[in-house]
Order: sequence, then structure tokens, then C-alpha cells
Amino acid sequence: MTFREDGTAALEWAARYLEQVGEFPVLAQVEPGDVRKRLPPSPPEHGEPFADVLRDLDEIIVPATTHWQSPRFFAYFANSAAEPGILAELIAATLNSVGFIWRTSPALTELEAHTLDWTAQLLGLPLGWHGHIEDTASVSTIAALAAAREANGGRVVVCSEEAHSSVERAARLLGLETRKVPLDAEYRLDPTAVDLTEAAALVATVGTTSTTAVDPVPVLADACEAAGVWLHVDAAYAGSAWVCPELRWSQAGVERADSLVVNAHKWLFTPMDCSLLWTRKPEALRAAFSLVPEYLRTSDDAENLSDYGPALGRRFRSLKLWAVLRCYGREGLQVRIREAIRLAELFEGWIRDEPGWELCAPRPFSVVCFRRDGSDDENEDLLARANATGELFLSHTRLDGRYVLRLAIGNERTTEADVRRAWDVLKHS
Amino acid sequence: MTFREDGTAALEWAARYLEQVGEFPVLAQVEPGDVRKRLPPSPPEHGEPFADVLRDLDEIIVPATTHWQSPRFFAYFANSAAEPGILAELIAATLNSVGFIWRTSPALTELEAHTLDWTAQLLGLPLGWHGHIEDTASVSTIAALAAAREANGGRVVVCSEEAHSSVERAARLLGLETRKVPLDAEYRLDPTAVDLTEAAALVATVGTTSTTAVDPVPVLADACEAAGVWLHVDAAYAGSAWVCPELRWSQAGVERADSLVVNAHKWLFTPMDCSLLWTRKPEALRAAFSLVPEYLRTSDDAENLSDYGPALGRRFRSLKLWAVLRCYGREGLQVRIREAIRLAELFEGWIRDEPGWELCAPRPFSVVCFRRDGSDDENEDLLARANATGELFLSHTRLDGRYVLRLAIGNERTTEADVRRAWDVLKHS
Repeated sequence: MTFREDGTAALEWAARYLEQVGEFPVLAQVEPGDVRKRLPPSPPEHGEPFADVLRDLDEIIVPATTHWQSPRFFAYFANSAAEPGILAELIAATLNSVGFIWRTSPALTELEAHTLDWTAQLLGLPLGWHGHIEDTASVSTIAALAAAREANGGRVVVCSEEAHSSVERAARLLGLETRKVPLDAEYRLDPTAVDLTEAAALVATVGTTSTTAVDPVPVLADACEAAGVWLHVDAAYAGSAWVCPELRWSQAGVERADSLVVNAHKWLFTPMDCSLLWTRKPEALRAAFSLVPEYLRTSDDAENLSDYGPALGRRFRSLKLWAVLRCYGREGLQVRIREAIRLAELFEGWIRDEPGWELCAPRPFSVVCFRRDGSDDENEDLLARANATGELFLSHTRLDGRYVLRLAIGNERTTEADVRRAWDVLKHS
Repeated sequence: MTFREDGTAALEWAARYLEQVGEFPVLAQVEPGDVRKRLPPSPPEHGEPFADVLRDLDEIIVPATTHWQSPRFFAYFANSAAEPGILAELIAATLNSVGFIWRTSPALTELEAHTLDWTAQLLGLPLGWHGHIEDTASVSTIAALAAAREANGGRVVVCSEEAHSSVERAARLLGLETRKVPLDAEYRLDPTAVDLTEAAALVATVGTTSTTAVDPVPVLADACEAAGVWLHVDAAYAGSAWVCPELRWSQAGVERADSLVVNAHKWLFTPMDCSLLWTRKPEALRAAFSLVPEYLRTSDDAENLSDYGPALGRRFRSLKLWAVLRCYGREGLQVRIREAIRLAELFEGWIRDEPGWELCAPRPFSVVCFRRDGSDDENEDLLARANATGELFLSHTRLDGRYVLRLAIGNERTTEADVRRAWDVLKHS
């Protein structure tokens, strides 16, 4: 193998993929087991050319891929891996740094801290918070709740019924109970129903997974402060919107959080995985995680980012975030966030104006919740038929017991024509 | 930005880096804060060309990088990101799949299961174990111990004094106690000193971090079986050696483990991060982690790999492992593992034959523990002087209270000349 030749072929493969991704069926049109059936049952005895891997990408992997990079991927929280971020991943894999302590890669450690400071500035967060990167919001939440448990000894995690499932998973892992708070009429945590007895932490969500509702953080911050309870804010999706000043209404109270998670891989155009965790109490995270064995002791007193979360080994994840922030700049991020919101607003208007269709929740950001008149089963069938066309991929949720469709905009390649095409498909499905 | 042009520049940067990596000082010769001082305090307002990122890689990042890809990186567990794996990371970032459930990327889910089956075959593991990928062994251990706690309700994790620090970190996260078992004369867990009272799990290590000692797994398996305790085997480093039949003596008893971790990013030439976790009790992992909210419910009954660990989101990590297994084949992996061991054996012989130097532990694999006659301080200074030359990077440990140097071989680019150069530097430091 020559790295330049194989690399040129891989790069050309990637370039063509990005050019063609809008033409593939968005949701993979395969059945469970179809991929494995096509792969040899055993690994090769002797090495094969890299070109064979590229061939199998086309023949086996791409047809079984749900195309998150497609401009008509509207499910969950749509995202994008921006081109500078993709290339930065090539560089990160080339360096193959492992940043468990500062000296094993000073650049990794310091660029991670630095890009988190940059991002805090872009989002208008308080100066001086400590930031680092975990793989996913699930793990960021584990780190935050472990710190909370360490800080106050509480045994309960309080969150709304619409908090992300990873909160309950994290609590269970940590041996904590979860106490779910009912919602108000707009699917926000109802602060009048909060009980903080024996609570270690309250998790407030800015941008819930179902409807992107914004919990009333200021009043929850009051309650947490009074009770000595850790306030963790899950803004995994919506936090990126704060790059636009006009969307910072949803940041009210967040400056009083003990910890905050924003996923750069959701709406900050950074490839998976890049979950940003900030805290104003870094000492509580260190207390929960730091444990330095002899073979990692060094004489420098530099900060080790592995003291702030479950994993000891660390990839050079900040490189892709750095590349995106630099190549897009504040302005480039704002343009993309605003366009996603404009498109969501447009779609929301079409639903509002169309007889026989109904909006099911407020739309603070770029996700629209809606359904067609009819039963839950009819809406479920509608979604299945629409997704089966391959033209788009939407997912669903359930609100007040009713089956609801969601259209999430967030891919930077999504244009007005894509959203219009989705609407046409839905109307005729 | 055009992806092809910037990509060509990034690829050329990567190719040159890999050609030149042996010429850089292995251990970064910078002080804490040096990187951050050179970076602008704030992110750019407007986008910059990707070429500027590449320029700063050369000027700021590379000089502050400890070069894990260097053939004279002999610290911790030396590793390599093989070229097919690097290119696969470019592809994975391009696809940007997020595999939290099967349908969000069938190819990701099935290729992960399939490459784990392939690897199990290569390593001679029992057929039918369930395998998936976590980012690091720390998180794999968390998953295994959470399953153990779920399976038997025990409150204590038992491991040797030389078990990796991540075991104690994982136990602490899970609210479990750690009980350390003393060592025998060869730094293996002493089975006569094991107390399994109230134990959830026993962690046996095949290839400890300090000396790569192999705990007596068969007798520990007997004890675990009798007591109903989960046996987790940490073969994060040494498990890769099992690709060579002559090294499978160290696998004895592992077929009786409840879970096993092997890090493909350590000695299977796969870029960070790629920690392989197998279990013969997948239902216990599912019991610990599965929690499916409405918005992730689907009608297919395919397996969701996020049911087996803490994170919900998943990168397409198997792609790089698949690329390495295919491009190297069984034979290519064996050749590289055997060469690393041959070089370690050679170095061990030089130490043994050199008056004034001492071997400090048996060498089952590719790590040599040694010191020069003299005090701990003198050996510490020796290591500091050797590392300061930039010619190599070694790390240390402490055995029986004494400061000990470690030379770890594992980078596929390391040649006999590199090991000889390291020996020359050490002798003259």
C-alpha cells in the first residue's frame, strides 16, 4: 500500500459521496442481517488492497447506510459533518495522539481547553468555566451527575418527563434514583411540581428531544441554589443556537448552572463525536474522577483532562471543532443556524395553513412537531410510507399520548427545495 | 473551500507527517501553557481558509505533540495507527453515521458486530460471544462492572494491586468498593489471597500495565464460578498477542470469563479509539443499560448496540478496525506482533548482558522493565535526561517500591535500529 495513492482514492471516494449523498435513499432500505450476510464469515488470512475496502463501501456499506449527511435527513436532531471537520479527523487519526495526561500530548490537552473557551465565547457563556470534551452527551451527563453526587451526597436526580433518556441511564449507572417532574402545557418542566428532597442534581433541558422545549432555568436555578442541589443543563441540541444573540433568550439562567452540555456534533457542524461539557465547579469533577497511579505521575503540574470524566484515554477530538470554528467563523455558524430556523419556520407555516394538518407543539428552534388529522395508526403509517420512499427520513415522538411526527432541520446542506420536497412527499403519502 | 483541494493538501500533510515522524523529538519539548499562548484568545469572526489550519498544525500543534506514531515512542503501551485505519477514519467522518439504534445506520451496527466476530476468530476466542466497541478500556470496564452489579447485586470489585487504575475509577463511579489483592513474586494477582465476600466482580489482568504480568485466570475462574462472581478479564494490551498461537498460553481460562476487553487501538494497529468488549452474558449488559424511549422505538427487532454501554450515540468505529483487518490479514498482524516481541527480547538480552543494569520483571510480551544500578533518584534523572534528548520516549513504574524504567514496543514502524538507538541513548544518559 502506498498511503498517497490509497489516500487519493479514499479522498475521491469521500468527495463523490458528499456530492451524491442527496441522491441516496435517506433511510437505509435493508432488513436486519442484510449486511452481515454479504460479508465473509471470516477475516482474510492475507492482506487485501485498500481498493477492495473502497469497493465494498460502495457495494455493501453505502446501501445499508442511513445517510445522516443527506440534506433530507430530518430525523432525531439532524446534523452535519462539515468538510473542515472531516479533514481534521484525517489529521487526528494520523497523529493518533492519546491525551490521558498533559505530557502525552500537550497540543491535544491545550487545544481542547482552548477551543472550549472559544466556543464559550461564541455562545455567550460566562468567562472562566472549565470545559472539556466527552464522546456523547450520555457520558457528559454521567460526568456531571458523578460530580453532583460527590459534591453533595444526594441520591436522587430530578428531571422532567421530557428529559433525554440518557439522564435516567446515567442515574441508574451511578446508583441514583430518577424523579420525573410533570410538564406544563408546553412540554416544559413544571417548576411548581419540583421536589428536591435528597436530590443530588436537577437536570434542566434547553431544547428537549421531543419538542425542543426550554425548561424554566432561572426559577430552577433559584430552587437548586436554595437546596444546595447541583444544576446540570442539557442543551445538547439547542445550545449551539446561542451563537445567535437573538436566540439567547433560551440561555436565561444557564449562567447559574453547575454544569452544561452542548453537543458540537449536533448543531455545530462537527463530526461525531464531540460533546462539550462545561462546569463552574471543576474541583467537583476532579474529586469524582481523579486517581493518578504511579505510572502516570509526572513532575509538571499541568492539567490532565482525564481527571474530568470516565475515560482515561482521549482522542484528539478538539481538532475537528477547531477546524470548523476557524473555517466557518462566528459569522458562518450564525448564517447556518439562522437558515435552519428559517426553513423550520417556513415548514411550520405550511402545516399551519394546510387544512387537515396540525401543529402539536411550539417551535422555538428548528424542529417542527405535527400530525395529520386521523388516528395514531394512520400517522404511523403515513410516516412509514414517507420514509419508505427514500426521499426523506423523519422520526416521531409521542405527546400527551398521541403519535406525533417531527421534522428536524440541522444539516447545513438542506435547502428550501429539500424542505419543500419533504412537504410534498408527506402530503402525498 | 473546495473539498478536493483542501483534502489533497490535508492528505499530503498527513503523508509527510508519517514520513517525517521519526525525525521529531518524540516527547514534546514544551512547557504547560506554551500552546495556548500561541493561539488567538478568541475565535475568528469570519471563516479562514483551511490552509491556515494546516499552517498552524506545523507551527503550533506539531511542536507541542508527543509523537505516538514515532518509531521511538516506547512509553506506556506503544501503539500505531496503521494507514488503512487512518483512511477509514476519513471515510467514517464523511459518512458521519450515528448508530444509536440499528435503523439509524444498519451498516454501522452490523459491521461492528461482524468485525468483533472476525477479531474473536483471529484471537481464538470462544464462538458466539457478543462483541461491541467502546471508546476506551475505562468505559468497557464500566460497562462490564455495571453488568456484574446488575447480575448478582454484589458491592465489591476485586482486583490485584497491579490492575489498571481504570478499574478503581469504574468501581467508584458505580458506587462499588475496590478490594485489592496482593501480588505474587512475579507481580501477578496472588490467588491464595482472594476474598470474594460480597463481590460483584473480579477483574483479572492479562498483561498488567506495569510489567505485562498475566494473572492466573484459570484458578480465578474456578473461584468466581464457585462464588457466583462475574469474571472480567482486562487484556487491553496483551489480548492482541493472541493472534499468534504461540502466545495463547496467556489466554488460558479466558474462555470462562463473563467479559473481556481488548483495545484494538493498543496493539492491533487501529487508530484511537477502539476498545473491544466481549461478553458471554449479553443479557446482563442489556439489563444494565437498555432503556428505550418512545422516540427511539421502532418496529424492527434488530439489535441496538447502545443497549450494551453507557453512550447512546455511536461513531462508526468498526470501519477502521475492518480496514486494518482486511489490509493486514491474519498474517500481517502476526508478523507485526512477532516483530515487536522479537525486538523486546533483543533489548531484554542487552540489559541482561550489560554490567550495571538489571531486569526488574519477567517479560511475557513486548515490554521490558529494567533499571540501572543506583538510587531511585538516579534512575529518575536518567529517564528525564534520556527523554529530554528527544531521541525517544520511555515511561516508568514502581515495583516493590523501586523506581523502574519501562521500554514498550508496539509501534509497527519500530525497527531494530530504533531499539538499538534507544539503548545507546540510555547507556550514555
